[in-house]
Amino acid sequence: MTSVVILGAGVMGSAMCLPFADRGFDIRLVGTHLDEHAITSVQESGLHPKLNVILPANITCFQHDKLTEAVGDGTDLILLGVASAGVTWAVERLASVLQKPVPILMITKGMTAQMGTLPDLVAHSLSHNLNSAVSVAAIAGPCIAGELAVRRPTGTVIVSRDLSLAQRLCNLLQTDYYQPRISQDMMGAETCAAFKNFFAIAVGWAGGAQQNLSPTKNNSQNNNAAAILFNQAVRELTVLVTALGGSADSVLGMPGVGDLYVTCQAGRNSRLGHHLGQGLRYQDVKSGPMQHDTIEGAELGIAVAEHLREIVRAGKIDGNKLPLTLALLNTLTHNEPFTPEWALYH
Amino acid sequence: MTSVVILGAGVMGSAMCLPFADRGFDIRLVGTHLDEHAITSVQESGLHPKLNVILPANITCFQHDKLTEAVGDGTDLILLGVASAGVTWAVERLASVLQKPVPILMITKGMTAQMGTLPDLVAHSLSHNLNSAVSVAAIAGPCIAGELAVRRPTGTVIVSRDLSLAQRLCNLLQTDYYQPRISQDMMGAETCAAFKNFFAIAVGWAGGAQQNLSPTKNNSQNNNAAAILFNQAVRELTVLVTALGGSADSVLGMPGVGDLYVTCQAGRNSRLGHHLGQGLRYQDVKSGPMQHDTIEGAELGIAVAEHLREIVRAGKIDGNKLPLTLALLNTLTHNEPFTPEWALYH
Repeated sequence: MTSVVILGAGVMGSAMCLPFADRGFDIRLVGTHLDEHAITSVQESGLHPKLNVILPANITCFQHDKLTEAVGDGTDLILLGVASAGVTWAVERLASVLQKPVPILMITKGMTAQMGTLPDLVAHSLSHNLNSAVSVAAIAGPCIAGELAVRRPTGTVIVSRDLSLAQRLCNLLQTDYYQPRISQDMMGAETCAAFKNFFAIAVGWAGGAQQNLSPTKNNSQNNNAAAILFNQAVRELTVLVTALGGSADSVLGMPGVGDLYVTCQAGRNSRLGHHLGQGLRYQDVKSGPMQHDTIEGAELGIAVAEHLREIVRAGKIDGNKLPLTLALLNTLTHNEPFTPEWALYH
Repeated sequence: MTSVVILGAGVMGSAMCLPFADRGFDIRLVGTHLDEHAITSVQESGLHPKLNVILPANITCFQHDKLTEAVGDGTDLILLGVASAGVTWAVERLASVLQKPVPILMITKGMTAQMGTLPDLVAHSLSHNLNSAVSVAAIAGPCIAGELAVRRPTGTVIVSRDLSLAQRLCNLLQTDYYQPRISQDMMGAETCAAFKNFFAIAVGWAGGAQQNLSPTKNNSQNNNAAAILFNQAVRELTVLVTALGGSADSVLGMPGVGDLYVTCQAGRNSRLGHHLGQGLRYQDVKSGPMQHDTIEGAELGIAVAEHLREIVRAGKIDGNKLPLTLALLNTLTHNEPFTPEWALYH
């Protein structure tokens, strides 16, 4: 395997150029229509404007209408890095330009409205369209793109129902600074990858709520509260993952506690939680201070809310084990204030 | 149960006055010889100087030589809040003043050199000295004393081999801001409580190491590295807890991930890690920037190092599953530099 087409030139797709380049891949970076400016900039100077990093030299860039040229006679691997809303578009485009099945490695995070994984969706759709089985793997785990792009130590999990593909990709991508492990638990890893953003909203509440409290002489923060919420997030993530058929081991690993830890340190999901802690409602935040931001955890919650409530109603998951999840869904979809109910957490 | 003797007037013992006072307990706060100044200050003005908080009015204070008076005709509960080094002293003092067994609730954290729990040690010693069984419970989980002392939301676990004692104490202590849960997993909870400080040193490494790297144009931090270390800490904590006969559920709960999360946000253990990340050796830190600080995680590591290496040598724990633990032990006891070995983490 020596050539890779990266579809999606956002921060994470572009940061993945680093391990690929350092392992000698021929890299063809293809933007979506959202990435026009980034692609032009990398073509002209190497600088990715959102990463604020000069990408390695051995990358050829293509605008969104040049996917056919980028794939050319063929490629050994597609790295799929579009936003979750762009997955259907990406599958259609790939189906029209691929002559034969090529393994797909996904970094797009999210879930379908029925709480299926996006890699399974892509495998199913592409296999159907190409009339031949397509192998799909995905990367989960704590990875801030900007840090990877400057070769800071980064650990992830490459997950696939085809463990030999995961192992092959792991061997191909490993560098001194990029250390993937492998897993076969697609449902567990992808549920963690999607929901860690959702739960980071709750943990972020603590810092915002603190600002609404009178300052204390001893300058107390609200870390005890954050820890309760972090712990409850891990508890409920375990309930969700196992109910969906995944393994609790993913929750205890990089896709779960590892990624939740890093996601709670900063970022847009935490920031939404902060605003909720200050007393704003979700709609106030979305029409006010975060009107231009994509908040992945909120989008995930809104996307799966109906299905999740339905499986709780049907008794497939015990709602008493998901007090934080259900309250947060009501905050996102019914615009209710978010108020932790400490006595319900276990 | 209406009266409690709190032995140890450090920040955590004194902060526990809050839920006891709000639940109407008659509180007798007894300092050790380290707390003379704090006891005098609370007696004179109510102000606990280290907490920087005025304690509730219904507290009677006693200096360390007045334990007999404090216990008086009897008390319903002893809250044991001395430093881990003071446990033997405390047991001797209690044995000499108690007329009959009284339940003990411990907040002291640590382990014996043979990796036994301190509550089990206290239960054994006091029962032996009083010639009658003494019930012991302990509090684990994320609790920053200063936050509890100003009634910020706090969640803990009251753990006891006698679950009915844990439940009774839980019912007696619960307030709107103080929310204990109960557990019977003494070994698991106490191992987490002790080792979370130790592992917080490793997670703290990432921030310090960052300062040794050249700044990047995109202002990258080292959060991906911190997440690998956090995750590895949770993995190795699970290995340790289960090898010692505890339950992995405590690792996944407030004593484990909950407390590790909050301990990694700040504090002396993180600060030691920070210095190690900057390239200092442990002895440099202890004779330099942290010469006046008690670093609980380092003391724990040094206390158990010999026994832990011995049980690894004896094959009772697989050393390949403890790469972070063993490296950190060498840093603390052999003054080796601490360098994460990313490829060994799983």
